Amino acid sequence: MRVEIWSDIACPWCYVGKARFEKALAAFPHRDQVEVVHRSFELDPGRAKGDTVDVLTMLTKKYGMSQAQAQAGEDNLGTQAAAEGLAYRTRDRDHGSTFDMHRLLHFAKEQGRQDELLQILYRANFAEERSVYSEGDERLVELAVEAGLDGDAAREVLADPDRYADEVRADAREAAQLGANGVPFFVLDRTYGVSGAQPAEVFTQALTQAWGERPVLKPVGAADTDGAQACGPDGCAVPQ
Amino acid sequence: MRVEIWSDIACPWCYVGKARFEKALAAFPHRDQVEVVHRSFELDPGRAKGDTVDVLTMLTKKYGMSQAQAQAGEDNLGTQAAAEGLAYRTRDRDHGSTFDMHRLLHFAKEQGRQDELLQILYRANFAEERSVYSEGDERLVELAVEAGLDGDAAREVLADPDRYADEVRADAREAAQLGANGVPFFVLDRTYGVSGAQPAEVFTQALTQAWGERPVLKPVGAADTDGAQACGPDGCAVPQ
Repeated sequence: MRVEIWSDIACPWCYVGKARFEKALAAFPHRDQVEVVHRSFELDPGRAKGDTVDVLTMLTKKYGMSQAQAQAGEDNLGTQAAAEGLAYRTRDRDHGSTFDMHRLLHFAKEQGRQDELLQILYRANFAEERSVYSEGDERLVELAVEAGLDGDAAREVLADPDRYADEVRADAREAAQLGANGVPFFVLDRTYGVSGAQPAEVFTQALTQAWGERPVLKPVGAADTDGAQACGPDGCAVPQ
Repeated sequence: MRVEIWSDIACPWCYVGKARFEKALAAFPHRDQVEVVHRSFELDPGRAKGDTVDVLTMLTKKYGMSQAQAQAGEDNLGTQAAAEGLAYRTRDRDHGSTFDMHRLLHFAKEQGRQDELLQILYRANFAEERSVYSEGDERLVELAVEAGLDGDAAREVLADPDRYADEVRADAREAAQLGANGVPFFVLDRTYGVSGAQPAEVFTQALTQAWGERPVLKPVGAADTDGAQACGPDGCAVPQ
């Protein structure tokens, strides 16, 4: 079974939702047969690289919240994160473009290091005083190396804005096609969808349902008993 | 969309079928949104590492063919391969255990080099005088390096028979669950199945059908309009 998770590094509920999903997955009996794939979703795609702003300022400007409302939201998120055992800095976080991080996550996927990098990006952004938006590309290179990637290769990816850009945009299009208008968005075997950082029990239910209803394949073309060109335990078909 | 292909390096129809599938994929308008994954299937799982035999001898012994029948089958495969532009040695090929190659393909998947390695293994086995069964592990290390893998890392994987062994066996179990009794076996979005090296037109039909019928997701848990904890273009939900 395959679970695709659309998320953004700048999305607190994605950080919390990932932990809740992983709690459900860790207890799922067929977890060894579940593959998890990260998909890109930019919450703020119009923001330019280097255009960084304090989170509270962004919340008040973009969403018209008062400073107190914005801070209360952050405090609430801190409480929810703590309930999942996650550190969350409710003060002095910043916000910016995540496009390069998504490009880097696609590179990491090719190298089998996607989940490691995503977790490190979340931790740096939400739990540590290491802004993922500052230090030019070098902070992201540092985090890529922590995730087991080659630093020079990561630097090359970051320096060329076209690398993996199509993959990031394709993920966003696919999310829209699947009906997602926010993240985190979980898709199980392209059959079940879970929107938002739902409680772990909901993920358990989704995993169980999707597992139990794994689809029966519909054959296309001749069946293999019908002279198809295939090899089996009894040898390879030899067409006349 | 995702296409999983169960196959074995020792399976001539897998070699031919891969080329036919790729011909269909190259002409498929949504090819950029198709992900192809190799899955392991051993045709001869009982054969021990190092137990290598001439293909014609294996065919006559295991399947009770006459030498002439076996050779005619190989010649026929050579003709079918040539029609796909593939070289195929109809004489002096050998046969042995492919377990280590499947383990190595799972390692290559982690490194984003799976398709490269599979193609190189097929070519060495069917088209070149480089037996994939001889030279101890060093021939496979040589081919792994050609596929862009680190030679020492590949050697370590090959030296430890437990590495990726579970993944190889899980693939085989999954093939059986999906109803495959031979290879190649193609599964599109876990919805459509194609058995055998069918003509490219059949793959085109399968790709088109599967694309057109991409499933509508069934939601599990609260919808995101219903107070779920998610972030969207209008900000992050703040639970009361």
